[in-house]
Amino acid sequence: MVKIGLIGYGYWGPKLVRNFFDDSACKVKTVVDLRRESLEVVKKYYPSIRTSTTIDEVFEDSKIDAVVISTPVSTHFSLGKKALNQGKHVLIEKPMTTSYREAIELVNLAKKKKKVLMVDHTFLYTDAVPNELGKISYFDSTRTNLGLFQKDVNVLWDLAAHDISILTYLVKEKPQSILASGISHTKNKLENIVFVTIKYPSGFIAHLNCSWSSPVKIRLILIGGKKKMIVYNDVEPTEKIKVYDSGYKIMNRKDPEKFQVDYRIGDIHIPKIELQEALIGVTRDFLHAIEFGSKPISNAALGLEVVKILSLADKSMRNGEWPMKYEKSHFNQ
Amino acid sequence: MVKIGLIGYGYWGPKLVRNFFDDSACKVKTVVDLRRESLEVVKKYYPSIRTSTTIDEVFEDSKIDAVVISTPVSTHFSLGKKALNQGKHVLIEKPMTTSYREAIELVNLAKKKKKVLMVDHTFLYTDAVPNELGKISYFDSTRTNLGLFQKDVNVLWDLAAHDISILTYLVKEKPQSILASGISHTKNKLENIVFVTIKYPSGFIAHLNCSWSSPVKIRLILIGGKKKMIVYNDVEPTEKIKVYDSGYKIMNRKDPEKFQVDYRIGDIHIPKIELQEALIGVTRDFLHAIEFGSKPISNAALGLEVVKILSLADKSMRNGEWPMKYEKSHFNQ
Amino acid sequence: MVKIGLIGYGYWGPKLVRNFFDDSACKVKTVVDLRRESLEVVKKYYPSIRTSTTIDEVFEDSKIDAVVISTPVSTHFSLGKKALNQGKHVLIEKPMTTSYREAIELVNLAKKKKKVLMVDHTFLYTDAVPNELGKISYFDSTRTNLGLFQKDVNVLWDLAAHDISILTYLVKEKPQSILASGISHTKNKLENIVFVTIKYPSGFIAHLNCSWSSPVKIRLILIGGKKKMIVYNDVEPTEKIKVYDSGYKIMNRKDPEKFQVDYRIGDIHIPKIELQEALIGVTRDFLHAIEFGSKPISNAALGLEVVKILSLADKSMRNGEWPMKYEKSHFNQ
Amino acid sequence: MVKIGLIGYGYWGPKLVRNFFDDSACKVKTVVDLRRESLEVVKKYYPSIRTSTTIDEVFEDSKIDAVVISTPVSTHFSLGKKALNQGKHVLIEKPMTTSYREAIELVNLAKKKKKVLMVDHTFLYTDAVPNELGKISYFDSTRTNLGLFQKDVNVLWDLAAHDISILTYLVKEKPQSILASGISHTKNKLENIVFVTIKYPSGFIAHLNCSWSSPVKIRLILIGGKKKMIVYNDVEPTEKIKVYDSGYKIMNRKDPEKFQVDYRIGDIHIPKIELQEALIGVTRDFLHAIEFGSKPISNAALGLEVVKILSLADKSMRNGEWPMKYEKSHFNQ
Repeated sequence: MVKIGLIGYGYWGPKLVRNFFDDSACKVKTVVDLRRESLEVVKKYYPSIRTSTTIDEVFEDSKIDAVVISTPVSTHFSLGKKALNQGKHVLIEKPMTTSYREAIELVNLAKKKKKVLMVDHTFLYTDAVPNELGKISYFDSTRTNLGLFQKDVNVLWDLAAHDISILTYLVKEKPQSILASGISHTKNKLENIVFVTIKYPSGFIAHLNCSWSSPVKIRLILIGGKKKMIVYNDVEPTEKIKVYDSGYKIMNRKDPEKFQVDYRIGDIHIPKIELQEALIGVTRDFLHAIEFGSKPISNAALGLEVVKILSLADKSMRNGEWPMKYEKSHFNQ
Repeated sequence: MVKIGLIGYGYWGPKLVRNFFDDSACKVKTVVDLRRESLEVVKKYYPSIRTSTTIDEVFEDSKIDAVVISTPVSTHFSLGKKALNQGKHVLIEKPMTTSYREAIELVNLAKKKKKVLMVDHTFLYTDAVPNELGKISYFDSTRTNLGLFQKDVNVLWDLAAHDISILTYLVKEKPQSILASGISHTKNKLENIVFVTIKYPSGFIAHLNCSWSSPVKIRLILIGGKKKMIVYNDVEPTEKIKVYDSGYKIMNRKDPEKFQVDYRIGDIHIPKIELQEALIGVTRDFLHAIEFGSKPISNAALGLEVVKILSLADKSMRNGEWPMKYEKSHFNQ
Repeated sequence: MVKIGLIGYGYWGPKLVRNFFDDSACKVKTVVDLRRESLEVVKKYYPSIRTSTTIDEVFEDSKIDAVVISTPVSTHFSLGKKALNQGKHVLIEKPMTTSYREAIELVNLAKKKKKVLMVDHTFLYTDAVPNELGKISYFDSTRTNLGLFQKDVNVLWDLAAHDISILTYLVKEKPQSILASGISHTKNKLENIVFVTIKYPSGFIAHLNCSWSSPVKIRLILIGGKKKMIVYNDVEPTEKIKVYDSGYKIMNRKDPEKFQVDYRIGDIHIPKIELQEALIGVTRDFLHAIEFGSKPISNAALGLEVVKILSLADKSMRNGEWPMKYEKSHFNQ
Repeated sequence: MVKIGLIGYGYWGPKLVRNFFDDSACKVKTVVDLRRESLEVVKKYYPSIRTSTTIDEVFEDSKIDAVVISTPVSTHFSLGKKALNQGKHVLIEKPMTTSYREAIELVNLAKKKKKVLMVDHTFLYTDAVPNELGKISYFDSTRTNLGLFQKDVNVLWDLAAHDISILTYLVKEKPQSILASGISHTKNKLENIVFVTIKYPSGFIAHLNCSWSSPVKIRLILIGGKKKMIVYNDVEPTEKIKVYDSGYKIMNRKDPEKFQVDYRIGDIHIPKIELQEALIGVTRDFLHAIEFGSKPISNAALGLEVVKILSLADKSMRNGEWPMKYEKSHFNQ
């Protein structure tokens, strides 16, 4: 049975603890957090779990096989590195690190140590990731909400990781260029609004609209394929995915006065999706990889690619908002 | 009584004819269109209006005071120029022209001829254009639908004119830079998806997402102000505008497991707006300017500014997707 | 070519005139209304139509083949009777009359005179009337809006006619009992809120909720069949009909804490429906019946049945809110 | 500190345990359920709580002050009676019992024993129960979903208890008559669709539409007051309550062709409500009543009144669907 230590009982920590706790294939041994009040909550709900404010109680515990890192993103690299060096398997909250150099160092270290390195790109474990759309021509995502400003990263690193993980999973080709534009309305200069456009050699285009400053929470992804188009609305309680028969309609504009125009060309289908928590998929995939050596869906290579694209987007934003070429050789940060 | 000749009975033409027809301050004398079947419709519904396939029947009719141009955008300039040279007042469908140089020529000609030159930026005549938001920090518009590809212009010129007219009306400062990125999925190379980011010296940022390739029709504008934020959803039948009490909320994330998070910070207010057709405002404003010399809301200067920003966006898209500086001196196309 | 005279240019009148005007199989000859300002509108838009404030200009015009009656419901019977007696075909706005006795008299008169008698149950001409639901077990309709109180009939006669025409069309069996309950909040004692429950021998149940006093407009019909269930939402701009795979789900309630329950059992399908005006179907069906002797969908027998059920509901409401038996012999009002 | 024993760890049990567990004013000592697998869940999440399949481990435990009964409704009376006779305070899931006679016996027993008797009418503890509507003229509630058929009660007892508790809380006058109509589509003859109409002397009317057979979950309450009207949509994630400025509008129907009619008369206001779990209010109110002798909002008299109205509705349904008079003397069941 896999023994788990978790560091960081903030937003994702409690969800991860609950899912590992419910899985009979592992045992959550220790939870570390610097905030004593968070540990009180752990103690109340999980009297069997040890709590500590000292990180080394996880790293130096030889009985712990795997470390789950759900701390602020700026600490992911150093904690992940330490964990791998101590011979632990590692699951890190998204995004893996805040730079490509750090991400590649973790990936190489995991290979060397022959340990599982996985990133919690939860969305890949929903039923929502589509297939059978035909050749995809665009991906357009809007993620906005109010407040919840992060202290150590801008809105790009906070919200775009979701979409880029989906893109990396969905699209087989590599990007050609990445262009980002953003603005900070706060003193710390971290952007609270960012727009990203990613172009691919085949003509596929992806666009991300990320904001911490919208009065409404929007989680809307449009994906256009040759055969079908998809609208994924994560705010909708039950009818999250709509699949549209697509193609372009030649509208009769002769007498457009009288009736409302219906731009839809065919039927809409709302598939039944299981409203099971996607995080169950993450924890199972991690435990399975540890036990059987399988390759997780949200594996280290995918996590690395996400960091690479995020880094290029950030670089574009910082360098006059010009499109960055996606080429390995040119990459040095 | 103002006598009107209208050229182009396509999509906007019938709406304009109906509104002018209903206004007792004018008389629609002639409608010109190349398609005989369109003219049949005019004859059936408005037996009192003369129809013709010859444009000069409008230009050379000395009894016609004002010409309404609702033809494809690529013909706006030549028709507008001819009308002004014949001493007619001119109302042109948005956008005014397809280049800044043409637009400025029309504006100067109208001044010289002392005629009204107005652009049909209809949206400015809705109750929806907001005020009392406090200092505005962002504007984020999504305009998507399926099909209806224009033959002579890309999606930028078709859909972004609305938002840029609102921006020009709302914001007192001039843009600093304009960045646009887009893609064409058709053989004629006209972009069907375009994203525009406009930055202003004060830190205000505007973003436009324009697409002819979405399975759903979205008409959504988010405007963030210091005091209030607005969500304008034009697809909603009656509750189009929601006004949010704003500011950023520090969320208690200690125990975020149990309840759904409400990102809204205060009450929402849905003002009653009159569902009168905005076009009535356009036709009245035009007739009033002709009769009394008043300055229309959607005046020639505003129309010119819209064309300038559209041109810079188009230029950015064509020149490697770099931000274009908004400076008059650098402008030559 | 059928020559038409229309009486009553109020709410439905203009819509009916427009549709007949657009149909080349007929000619609208005369429109009668007591309000001169309504006739001014007719003159402006349709200079070719004669207008009059004298009803006999329609009845005594031997060139007029068919009379369309879109006056207040309390006048339907006398106008319809006169028209049939003058040898005209008759299309009457819904409901046909305000009593069963009157309705049956009109039906018999039409038979005797061998003239078409048709009622404008528009909804039957939409694509929305469903089929292939399997055996139907319930029908549940809510029709509410604010204001628009009628002066001569209560909300039952104003709004329930729609649903009862659908029921009569859909269900092959006759009702067993009709129960209605309502209240008037106005001085004229006409009910502004009415609830109707209709039971059928097979166990099928229909329920209607009619109100003029709701702040929101609701037009929602739920139909439950063995194979499929349908939700028809007429307020939704484009996605009016949702078809649900049905059957009852045994929910696992063991651990209902963690995830939102999805009560839907299968996929949802949103068929593409043509947003053509249903009234076109009505006018064509009427003209076709006149020319070719065909039986209209919304024929006299169906209109009679609607009046019968409305009458029984009204009687139930007036007689202590007890269920009325649906039996011809017991019917005398 | 109040010691609590809970009987019935089904749907509401886990929610009640969690809320009492989180409240430092009490201690959950024992949970009883006949299903061992439910008790396993309790043991896993709350190792400090004793579990048992024997009810008497709660009743005969002299350290337990209060008993929470969240078992099927048909067992409420016998368990409640036993608990009160053992000198325990009692919180019962809604509805209190399945008959008025039983409910009144419990109420009297609680008085005699001087113990708190409270019913979990959760909805009364939401922010959603409105005030300042002016004189109320109607209440119209729709509660539908798919499946989840109860085994011991019909849909009336399952779903209508919510609305009747709100009505009893909101309206100061007593009902005049109660009329109900329903149908069972299952072999056990328990109604799965029920409609209830309650009339009050002042002209106030309430209507409830309860169904287990709808493909969509609807939780919609419309309340009409002289000053304001309210629409409460519990399915909406964040904007649950809309408050409408009301009154009836005289619509200009002269030219209703051209624009969509807006039936709303004034502005809409969406108040910010706290998305705190209402159940916290229930558990606190119960504990407070035990400790300080305060009168709970959802007190025994209110719970009794709810049962009385439910009983009369059920009686109406069983006795030919005639309106039942609400008069104590006539009540004997």
